[in-house]
Amino acid sequence: MASPDRPQQPDASRTAAAAAAAAGEGHEVAAPGTGSRALLPPTERFATRTAGMTASEIRALFAVASRPEVVSLAGGMPNLAALPLQSLASEVADLVDVDGMTALQYGSAQGVPQLREQICEVMREEGIEGDPNDVVVTVGSQMALDLLTRIFVDPGDVVLAEGPSYVGALGSFAAYQARVVHVAMDEHGLVPALLHEALDALDRQGITPKFLYTIPNFHNPAGVTLAHERRPQILDLCRRYGVMVIEDNPYGMLGFTGETHPALRSYDADVIYLGSFSKTFASGLRVGWALVPPLVRDRLVLAAESATLCPPSFTQMLVSRYLSHHDWRSQIKTFSENYRERRDAMIAALETYLPEGCSWTVPDGGFFVWLTVPEGVDTKAMLPRAVTARVAYASGTGFYADGFGSRQIRLSFCYPTPERIAEGVRRLAAVLEAELDVVRTFGASARTELNRGPQTPSPDTT
Amino acid sequence: MASPDRPQQPDASRTAAAAAAAAGEGHEVAAPGTGSRALLPPTERFATRTAGMTASEIRALFAVASRPEVVSLAGGMPNLAALPLQSLASEVADLVDVDGMTALQYGSAQGVPQLREQICEVMREEGIEGDPNDVVVTVGSQMALDLLTRIFVDPGDVVLAEGPSYVGALGSFAAYQARVVHVAMDEHGLVPALLHEALDALDRQGITPKFLYTIPNFHNPAGVTLAHERRPQILDLCRRYGVMVIEDNPYGMLGFTGETHPALRSYDADVIYLGSFSKTFASGLRVGWALVPPLVRDRLVLAAESATLCPPSFTQMLVSRYLSHHDWRSQIKTFSENYRERRDAMIAALETYLPEGCSWTVPDGGFFVWLTVPEGVDTKAMLPRAVTARVAYASGTGFYADGFGSRQIRLSFCYPTPERIAEGVRRLAAVLEAELDVVRTFGASARTELNRGPQTPSPDTT
Repeated sequence: MASPDRPQQPDASRTAAAAAAAAGEGHEVAAPGTGSRALLPPTERFATRTAGMTASEIRALFAVASRPEVVSLAGGMPNLAALPLQSLASEVADLVDVDGMTALQYGSAQGVPQLREQICEVMREEGIEGDPNDVVVTVGSQMALDLLTRIFVDPGDVVLAEGPSYVGALGSFAAYQARVVHVAMDEHGLVPALLHEALDALDRQGITPKFLYTIPNFHNPAGVTLAHERRPQILDLCRRYGVMVIEDNPYGMLGFTGETHPALRSYDADVIYLGSFSKTFASGLRVGWALVPPLVRDRLVLAAESATLCPPSFTQMLVSRYLSHHDWRSQIKTFSENYRERRDAMIAALETYLPEGCSWTVPDGGFFVWLTVPEGVDTKAMLPRAVTARVAYASGTGFYADGFGSRQIRLSFCYPTPERIAEGVRRLAAVLEAELDVVRTFGASARTELNRGPQTPSPDTT
Repeated sequence: MASPDRPQQPDASRTAAAAAAAAGEGHEVAAPGTGSRALLPPTERFATRTAGMTASEIRALFAVASRPEVVSLAGGMPNLAALPLQSLASEVADLVDVDGMTALQYGSAQGVPQLREQICEVMREEGIEGDPNDVVVTVGSQMALDLLTRIFVDPGDVVLAEGPSYVGALGSFAAYQARVVHVAMDEHGLVPALLHEALDALDRQGITPKFLYTIPNFHNPAGVTLAHERRPQILDLCRRYGVMVIEDNPYGMLGFTGETHPALRSYDADVIYLGSFSKTFASGLRVGWALVPPLVRDRLVLAAESATLCPPSFTQMLVSRYLSHHDWRSQIKTFSENYRERRDAMIAALETYLPEGCSWTVPDGGFFVWLTVPEGVDTKAMLPRAVTARVAYASGTGFYADGFGSRQIRLSFCYPTPERIAEGVRRLAAVLEAELDVVRTFGASARTELNRGPQTPSPDTT
């Protein structure tokens, strides 16, 4: 630190050496003063946590998937074709006209108060009674999850997640150096007995996981939904072992059967709940939220402030107006019908085209089918050949923190038309057939260096 | 981890004990199974880094400052009155009409390509030649700074910052457990000789700071601008000691003299540059950016992806259209004229009303005046009395990581009208007079527990 009586040196000459002399210090300038050192530090000066940051396999696919000749069954982009653009255009014009001075200005770090009230109304659809004061609006629910990891996870801490789990969650967990322990699912979602087993094994090592991260409804990537009777069981187990629960529910309202699944948060007000308008309205606005207990809220708001100061007022107020002036429930119904039609197209195509030995989940909502291919096929190694055949998918390995999933594939039916979905599956089937030909002739080792799947009772392999 | 042949338990009964039994394990259920434990973890389960997260003093003021009878000289909200709302309304309606399917959809984690090109055009105004591929669009430049801290700072690492420094930067540094070493300024900005001294002292301890964080133009909160001849000196020093430079320049184009200050980035392409549309267009859109060397870019994009997946397409495309279709240079000139008028009102009021022994900076641009009050007055302790007298300000202590600044005040002239500014300063002067009366009668200790200012050659005390 400088001493208060240090004289100004406004006219110090232009070289560092002269500046050093002007400092008037008796000591020698230390060794680093070679003058030749670059400003940019060497790679090893990055923080330790960057070691865990690697490009997700899905991200690498985005460039490829955007080529028009490729049918992408890889991404998770919602299909927005049903949005009423004309009425949204006048809505947003009115927002600028009437509320421009607020919409274009900084707002509260916690989010626009009116929107937080409306979010509570939305959550009521799934049985949640929340207080607007406990809602924190974030730039997509991804930001909420990232910040919750920031405020709860020290390096080396254990977090529990379904296996497979959402790739963006695994990215945040890695960024904060969490150790992910996967708990397997079956076709009814997370298996309580296996959760108990994992909790118990950790407890015997003296480890209390920081939280269980779970997607109960229309799981990404697994496409399964947690059976209702399992929900209180899972909460009981977490309570017994003192483990917090983060419930991520971006697809909950996009069911195909008309059935509403009660949120875990509706059983226990201490569950942290993540919601999003990305799939029920528009992902490009990046408006999501967390509903958290007050004790967590204050820290979460502080973390949000340091992350972005505040979420964009503009997009929040647009969502708020949309909820006020539009029949958002009907719009969600329309979206769901579109997705159901696409799900049907994908399942029909899988049944028609896929070779013997494949199995898959049949989702009742959401965006994704989880496919398991025959032994000997490595889905990550196969991907370049699939892209050459003009179909893209997400290899299962991206959805595990531990390298599992090499016999799995996530297929997205959300975005392409039913016709394109059928064509994509047809192409995938041809690639799989060729792959299996090679496996049958030369054995699995010809195609894969390390084939570890199936290793867990993933939803479709039991 | 579960074994692959674990049987499904879809019908496990509803209690955790039954689930445990259903797990079929021979081992005893471990001790924590009391059933009475709450789901929410005790406070001590928060991550270590949350210890450094405290509500900024400015944040606590937001609620107070919003009362209409209080003249707030505390915030940093830009004055948006000059924005052409009507033409923006039709611009944004057209955006939805024409490009709605893209604007409402997920985009690239790095930002909309066309906007990144336009950002390079904007930066060219300050002498920067940047490549759109090296621009990362973020949710305000706050997010860029937060993520750069994430990828560079391990707990305990040293970062250098001016003293005083931007409160939001100090918040991010604290969140990642950086140790901030302040380097003092004079009225010509950061003092190279003092920077040299700090670098040398750290070097003798074997410490290389991760970076120097600096705001060269119209400093927040100090209101000073780095003299041109000091710019290469500072870069030379950082090069010699292997210290990266992060240049934060949100106010650079809001000068009052017509002079353009060359960015540090214009001297050296390895400087990391942060820019923002919050002050030159609209803060409520939260569109900022970082221009970084390629080596940093890839890690920054990965970190951004884990933080928010992608910035909102909608707000980015609105900024892009604004830059394409509006005379943004004239708009910035209009903004600058408004701020100059307000700066003049504040300086005139300070000269008219403030008691003997006060001194202040006279900024050539930006939003802020840095005021030093007479010895014996503690600006943090005085704040509640000021608010009672219907004027709010930001106490200097919020702008130091180390508790200095108790004799300083940041006064914002950006938002209120010139008349309100004059009235606010008049009220502040009365509070100061009353405070000095007490000090003169009872001594400083009557009003302050710990008065440490001035401790550094802050801009106005040399």
